[in-house]
Amino acid sequence: MDASLVDGLWAGYDSFCALGLDLDLTRGKPSAEQLDLSEALLSLPGPGIHHDGCGTDIRNYGGLDGLPELRAIFAELLGVPVEQLLALGNASLTLMHDALAYACLWGVPGSPRPWGREPIKFLCPTPGYDRHFALCEAFGIEMIAVPNLPDGPDVEAVAALAVADPDIKGLWVVPTYANPDGSTISEDAARRLAAMPTAAPDFRIFWDNAYFAHHLTAVETPTVNILALAAAAGNPDRPLLFASTSKMTFPGAGVAFFAGSPANATWYRQHLSKQAIGPDKVNQLRHVMFLRDANGVRAHMRRHREILAPKFAAVDRALTERLGAPGSSGATWTRPRGGYFVSLDVLPGTAGRVVELAANAGVALTPAGSTHPYGRDPLDSNIRLAPSMPPLPEVEQAMKVVALCVALAAAEAN
Amino acid sequence: MDASLVDGLWAGYDSFCALGLDLDLTRGKPSAEQLDLSEALLSLPGPGIHHDGCGTDIRNYGGLDGLPELRAIFAELLGVPVEQLLALGNASLTLMHDALAYACLWGVPGSPRPWGREPIKFLCPTPGYDRHFALCEAFGIEMIAVPNLPDGPDVEAVAALAVADPDIKGLWVVPTYANPDGSTISEDAARRLAAMPTAAPDFRIFWDNAYFAHHLTAVETPTVNILALAAAAGNPDRPLLFASTSKMTFPGAGVAFFAGSPANATWYRQHLSKQAIGPDKVNQLRHVMFLRDANGVRAHMRRHREILAPKFAAVDRALTERLGAPGSSGATWTRPRGGYFVSLDVLPGTAGRVVELAANAGVALTPAGSTHPYGRDPLDSNIRLAPSMPPLPEVEQAMKVVALCVALAAAEAN
Repeated sequence: MDASLVDGLWAGYDSFCALGLDLDLTRGKPSAEQLDLSEALLSLPGPGIHHDGCGTDIRNYGGLDGLPELRAIFAELLGVPVEQLLALGNASLTLMHDALAYACLWGVPGSPRPWGREPIKFLCPTPGYDRHFALCEAFGIEMIAVPNLPDGPDVEAVAALAVADPDIKGLWVVPTYANPDGSTISEDAARRLAAMPTAAPDFRIFWDNAYFAHHLTAVETPTVNILALAAAAGNPDRPLLFASTSKMTFPGAGVAFFAGSPANATWYRQHLSKQAIGPDKVNQLRHVMFLRDANGVRAHMRRHREILAPKFAAVDRALTERLGAPGSSGATWTRPRGGYFVSLDVLPGTAGRVVELAANAGVALTPAGSTHPYGRDPLDSNIRLAPSMPPLPEVEQAMKVVALCVALAAAEAN
Repeated sequence: MDASLVDGLWAGYDSFCALGLDLDLTRGKPSAEQLDLSEALLSLPGPGIHHDGCGTDIRNYGGLDGLPELRAIFAELLGVPVEQLLALGNASLTLMHDALAYACLWGVPGSPRPWGREPIKFLCPTPGYDRHFALCEAFGIEMIAVPNLPDGPDVEAVAALAVADPDIKGLWVVPTYANPDGSTISEDAARRLAAMPTAAPDFRIFWDNAYFAHHLTAVETPTVNILALAAAAGNPDRPLLFASTSKMTFPGAGVAFFAGSPANATWYRQHLSKQAIGPDKVNQLRHVMFLRDANGVRAHMRRHREILAPKFAAVDRALTERLGAPGSSGATWTRPRGGYFVSLDVLPGTAGRVVELAANAGVALTPAGSTHPYGRDPLDSNIRLAPSMPPLPEVEQAMKVVALCVALAAAEAN
């Protein structure tokens, strides 16, 4: 690059630094404006309202499976039989953790022995979600990165590994609008994952459907029905489903869902029955009264979209203005149709430097590498951008800085 | 017993059976009247109220340790430093389960290796709480029964076992108004448990303070400060404390607490940070607004007492009317100053029969044996009575049946 152009970049960078910015694109948190959409929850269920449709007093102990009315809404949305869906606490992360804990301590249906008795491995589509990777690290599960493609995990790579190594017990999948690249698994890819032979008899797909209703465009991508595909393939127990209202209502005060085959639902319920007497049914009733039904959820998510879509447009606009179309200048990024993230791939070897430059200019980004197992991105190229939380003007401002830092780090490297 | 007296008992029994009763003394659940005391929670926190005292938006993710204001209230009540107390989800049972899971998977501070790597044992003061025993069974922990005395676990027995066997990793204690016998540990007994030598370097007391504020008389028994005693004895990491609002506000929708030494709090928090992003802070704010402060909790618990005390008096009255004073006719029972249960010891060999007779007359009791490890009461003598849930007239009616069944089973046996 021409030295005067580089000087110009540095001058621009210095002027950003002089602004004393304090902006944050690190985590996929809803903004206050989005949380306000669910403000009615703060006064629900209201005086004297403390029974479910069956007449059960929801204030008291019990009801391990969760409130029937809420389970019905999310069973419809997720396309699973209501008997196989449990409505539980405030975080699907907890359900994923606990499923791993149950598996390590006691095994899953079909396990010859508890997973914790021997070294085990998981396949991790990459880039992926850092908290999935943190769970693997906590449980001592060796992570094997496989590429994540625009239509989901690289099935060829997954199938070749899963059939060859009985220590490979699991695969993470974020099927719809994945974190961070926004990819959605195709029905064909899902069918092949459901049907592929695996060396482990108790192989599980951790199907974290965190963003199934979180559309950013008018195209409301349907969720692939992995339970039905797995049952049709003769592997009904392969998928464990997770979802939640975290990015629908209040992230800290929502409801999480587990679903699986009859055997997996029984397995989860059986271990849960030692751990809990029942979930917070008052909060579940609150959600039923507020969301009403499946269409109520869909309508509510459209209101989120109205707030979120301009922020994602701002990310794309700022990158395009500085760097040209994706791929035209060494950097490329996603234009997701849903979810909470933009996955930005900068010139290999410069991701860490981009994050550093942005931090010095007052823009916090997720650490480079965090989208990869063990926090190690071998190309040092991928950065996850999370534009949901700051107000739109801050997203615009922050992304101007980020785009400049991408160009600057590339110029430094050349 | 005179045959005509026995005939009279049978005649009385038959007339109860003819009533077609359907009464339930099985579980320690608050009554609807008690739940109504917390009705205000159903409309809290109210419109526009969604920040804590530090200005954090409680609707969003985060705040792993729980709401500072709520932690402060319960730190004061439990006599522990607020930094060492976490306010979490809706069930202390879950926290006990998870502490065991963490210990089995990864060990506790001071563990040479994870507990799950070898056979381990727990000391179980008996009679005790069936869900503690169920946890031990789930985790494959061998249970060793030790007597529970009026001033807590039999310290001589506990100390002799704990010093001799390094596989003994833990002891259950319900320190105040224990389930089921209402006993409260003395400061002296607690001090000795805190100080006794143990063969296991990572021995833990699971101190389940479920009833610390649940007084049934004007004597508000103070909670022994086990954290302070353990620290003074040079064993700061020995106790793990558990408590909850389950029987204060709504059992299904309350808040549970974990407390321990700085090392134990750090240990718990570290594992929790993989499992959760934060508890339901909206529900915690609800509780702060409703309970207000430690004195607010105390006043609230007095309102519970007004409802509960007459039911416990009815239990004692019905037993005394039929059987004389405790111990005078082969049966004896507790007159608890707090908690949720009466522990009834009938003529050895007849507890199962009493429960069966009562069931046939339409009165459900907790299964005989459930107060003992593995559900096995070697004397077949102990029955747990839980009079909190039914309205007072039903408690009176049910207890007439129970008292008669106690006499009848004894007459049959003689």
